[in-house]
Amino acid sequence: MTPKVGWIGLGLIGKPMARRLANAGLAMTVWNRAASKAEELVPLGARPAATAREAAAASEVLFTCVSDPPALEAVLFGPEGALEGLGAGSVLVDCSTISPALARRIAAACAERGAEFLEAPITGGTWGAEKGELVFLIGGEAATLDRVRPVLAHLGKKLFHLGPHGAGQTVKLAMNLLYALEVQALAEALALVAGAGIGAEKLLDVLASSMGRAPVLDVKAPMMTSGNYAPSFPLRLMHKDLGLALDLANHLGVPLPATAAARETYSAVKGASAEDVDYAAVRRFWRQ
Amino acid sequence: MTPKVGWIGLGLIGKPMARRLANAGLAMTVWNRAASKAEELVPLGARPAATAREAAAASEVLFTCVSDPPALEAVLFGPEGALEGLGAGSVLVDCSTISPALARRIAAACAERGAEFLEAPITGGTWGAEKGELVFLIGGEAATLDRVRPVLAHLGKKLFHLGPHGAGQTVKLAMNLLYALEVQALAEALALVAGAGIGAEKLLDVLASSMGRAPVLDVKAPMMTSGNYAPSFPLRLMHKDLGLALDLANHLGVPLPATAAARETYSAVKGASAEDVDYAAVRRFWRQ
Amino acid sequence: MTPKVGWIGLGLIGKPMARRLANAGLAMTVWNRAASKAEELVPLGARPAATAREAAAASEVLFTCVSDPPALEAVLFGPEGALEGLGAGSVLVDCSTISPALARRIAAACAERGAEFLEAPITGGTWGAEKGELVFLIGGEAATLDRVRPVLAHLGKKLFHLGPHGAGQTVKLAMNLLYALEVQALAEALALVAGAGIGAEKLLDVLASSMGRAPVLDVKAPMMTSGNYAPSFPLRLMHKDLGLALDLANHLGVPLPATAAARETYSAVKGASAEDVDYAAVRRFWRQ
Amino acid sequence: MTPKVGWIGLGLIGKPMARRLANAGLAMTVWNRAASKAEELVPLGARPAATAREAAAASEVLFTCVSDPPALEAVLFGPEGALEGLGAGSVLVDCSTISPALARRIAAACAERGAEFLEAPITGGTWGAEKGELVFLIGGEAATLDRVRPVLAHLGKKLFHLGPHGAGQTVKLAMNLLYALEVQALAEALALVAGAGIGAEKLLDVLASSMGRAPVLDVKAPMMTSGNYAPSFPLRLMHKDLGLALDLANHLGVPLPATAAARETYSAVKGASAEDVDYAAVRRFWRQ
Repeated sequence: MTPKVGWIGLGLIGKPMARRLANAGLAMTVWNRAASKAEELVPLGARPAATAREAAAASEVLFTCVSDPPALEAVLFGPEGALEGLGAGSVLVDCSTISPALARRIAAACAERGAEFLEAPITGGTWGAEKGELVFLIGGEAATLDRVRPVLAHLGKKLFHLGPHGAGQTVKLAMNLLYALEVQALAEALALVAGAGIGAEKLLDVLASSMGRAPVLDVKAPMMTSGNYAPSFPLRLMHKDLGLALDLANHLGVPLPATAAARETYSAVKGASAEDVDYAAVRRFWRQ
Repeated sequence: MTPKVGWIGLGLIGKPMARRLANAGLAMTVWNRAASKAEELVPLGARPAATAREAAAASEVLFTCVSDPPALEAVLFGPEGALEGLGAGSVLVDCSTISPALARRIAAACAERGAEFLEAPITGGTWGAEKGELVFLIGGEAATLDRVRPVLAHLGKKLFHLGPHGAGQTVKLAMNLLYALEVQALAEALALVAGAGIGAEKLLDVLASSMGRAPVLDVKAPMMTSGNYAPSFPLRLMHKDLGLALDLANHLGVPLPATAAARETYSAVKGASAEDVDYAAVRRFWRQ
Repeated sequence: MTPKVGWIGLGLIGKPMARRLANAGLAMTVWNRAASKAEELVPLGARPAATAREAAAASEVLFTCVSDPPALEAVLFGPEGALEGLGAGSVLVDCSTISPALARRIAAACAERGAEFLEAPITGGTWGAEKGELVFLIGGEAATLDRVRPVLAHLGKKLFHLGPHGAGQTVKLAMNLLYALEVQALAEALALVAGAGIGAEKLLDVLASSMGRAPVLDVKAPMMTSGNYAPSFPLRLMHKDLGLALDLANHLGVPLPATAAARETYSAVKGASAEDVDYAAVRRFWRQ
Repeated sequence: MTPKVGWIGLGLIGKPMARRLANAGLAMTVWNRAASKAEELVPLGARPAATAREAAAASEVLFTCVSDPPALEAVLFGPEGALEGLGAGSVLVDCSTISPALARRIAAACAERGAEFLEAPITGGTWGAEKGELVFLIGGEAATLDRVRPVLAHLGKKLFHLGPHGAGQTVKLAMNLLYALEVQALAEALALVAGAGIGAEKLLDVLASSMGRAPVLDVKAPMMTSGNYAPSFPLRLMHKDLGLALDLANHLGVPLPATAAARETYSAVKGASAEDVDYAAVRRFWRQ
């Protein structure tokens, strides 16, 4: 009795997620702004939809997984958008990282149509998406979560139910500012030792046996020393999330001084980088 | 054939270190500005000296372990200071966190007297000092390190030889800014979720299973949620070390934007805290 | 041959502007979200409209002057919004401070209807609005500006034509970040001398005869020393403009480190202030 | 009955000051680390001293005017330093910008010798030094000030007596952070408009007729647009003074977020500039 699933957004994270569901044998309708990506899933049994609205109309559980708030607003609220297609009793699950305010607006729009909404931003990256080991940070009703839990089980190893609509996105933004500042911390520490003429490996040796070690730094440190910034989590998206975190904090009147300082260094690197780079490339702020 | 050891500085870290050496049976002369602390080591066989100079004169290997650069300058260069007592062929090992410039000045002053100098700032805290599991970040000659290695073996589990005089302090300052920014990252993330009305435990649950987890955060998070900031590493010392890191970076012309932003929050909390608190109390910047 | 004028937005700045035009004998239609404010202009000959759309339909030159981008989007693009009422050949002049991107979107929407658009954010405050001594920072076509110049002459002493659509808002945001940082500079300088136990008047005496004096500081300094922050330019609006400036800069990849740091202090004061205060109240960040 | 005057420090500011006193016919003894500069004053009647101590011994009022705290410590406390030469009843007037703590230390050292001390940091630059239009920010006893007032009258147009020892330096540091942030504000505003493709002159036109205009910006703006940063007030000295201001603020526990952010941009430009540049060159942070 698995539900009919719709999927909108087949990017770096969305595509491997959708592929897992298709491989698991779920009936799927898929739509992507660039239609060619939807075609890639046809051999796995997925049916391409002509519009986001059509994908929504064909689904009991509809996933959206796009890169930023404007993209999500377009696929939901734009012409031929998904919201118009959502049937009463269906569930919309959004895996994008957006503002809590937008999440609450979507929840209200779903409720008007008799549909339910779950915000479910994720961590774990492409690797986690492929292996079904994502972590979901969920905001919404527990009953809604229970309805989609069997589907999410194909995608993730952990589901954190963090509170009502907005709570999932808030914690997601808090986690991402924490990641960004940890990586900034490493970048500043490396800039200091480099400026003093000391090799990065000296610092990294000490870090590895210290209380400051963190898995994210184990992953990013080699990028910083090699200068190979092939994107795992693109800097432009981390920069966007820092903007969302600061927007939220400024709305709440909560000062975030180090996050604000870090955001400007990510901004400078974004402005100076022609190609897509991992957010570890914040190290380039010091021209390395 | 263990050397005669002198010890200057019997604070939170220095006393357990000195006690380990005394317990190991080494012949020790000790001096502390507040003499009562030196008396505590007498039952273990240590001999109290009347002045820093006298402690130095009685030692083949002299350790200093004090809280900040002015304190170290006083015990080394002040009246009846240790430097005047250092004999030719002796070794001075300083475990304080100071500027690389001061480390190089001490090295030069030792050389003038025919003595050798090793900078050996430590990480690992009181707990590591008591267990003999400190980590030493060493700058100086390898031959000097080899001479004192048998003594250091009683105190630490790891010795990182990081380069010439100044390199140990530089890496120490880089590590401490990294710690301070990691803890600041957690504080800002918690301030954001608190401002949004979400419990700290929600964020901490997610953090615990994320790539952002770090041992230092495992230790500091409970302090931040309980508001119990009994000092493990005092905020005033972390604030001092951030100042040393920024002094060094500004001397080198290396901008450290997030470190500079964080330092001001540590400063605000220092200014507002009557009692001695752990540096996790940076969370109080948001009046928690 | 003066044109029929419409006016939307009768707040602290908009009302005195509209009143000047009505007093000058121009035929006016006015609309405000809170209708009572429109009624106040009836004795001067203005005709209240029932909706923004109706005000637009009755006008050859339509002014909008509202507090922030969402308010402007609502009156222009919302139900019964002004855009639907704009006739071919009419001119929309917006005096709000918004993002350059929104200005360009409005320009495009006007062009679709055969109307022209001029962005014309202002400086000079309530006082300048009452005296007709505002400064307009204009973006758009020179020909459009020439068409409305006779109307603007009643309102302002200076018109700066800064370039195409977006340029007026960009310069406005740059000016506002400059004001905010100048006031922040004074607030930090006063915090330092206060922390050292020196009276504010000592610093202000020196400032008054220095190269650092600025008219904006002459106005804000007495607020800071008296603690009377009756809003001339509300902190919440300056905070909003700093957000727009940072959004623009981050979009462009231009780091603004001091602006970002200042924005967080404005945010903290906004979060801690129950009442509406002038942006000079950033001094309260230090609990004065 | 003018006193015998000594002068130590003949740099960009000190030399024109000393020359004015010599031209006024005062009996002068001069000393400079680089002796050739002292020789230049001989034709005006000044007598070169062999050491700082000798200059002090020959003077009733001794001026010091050097570039930074270490330089001042060297000429006062170093071998053959001025302090050893100061006679009982003489007055030491220091025009350098140093920390309030060092000012108080010097005052205490003078008192031990029966001499008086006045801190008298200056603003007004080379131009003011040549014209005798400097502004003195004075800390110390009013009676001491009265004793040297006739000499200072040759040098400055305004004397601000700001309080006891330390107060003059504190206000000086507060003024300099204010200057630095005003110039930073202009640099960030220009970076934003430049990033948006708008000419600097557009912003400067608006600034010139705004409440944000300031004499210091009138002087620095042409430097920023031309890229000609011939030093009037060298960036390295402004960077040093920002460091002193932050040291003081951090000692007091007063956070200065924007000053801290600005200091890092000055630091980056200092690190990247081979030649001596004016502090307006902070504009180069954005590679202009």
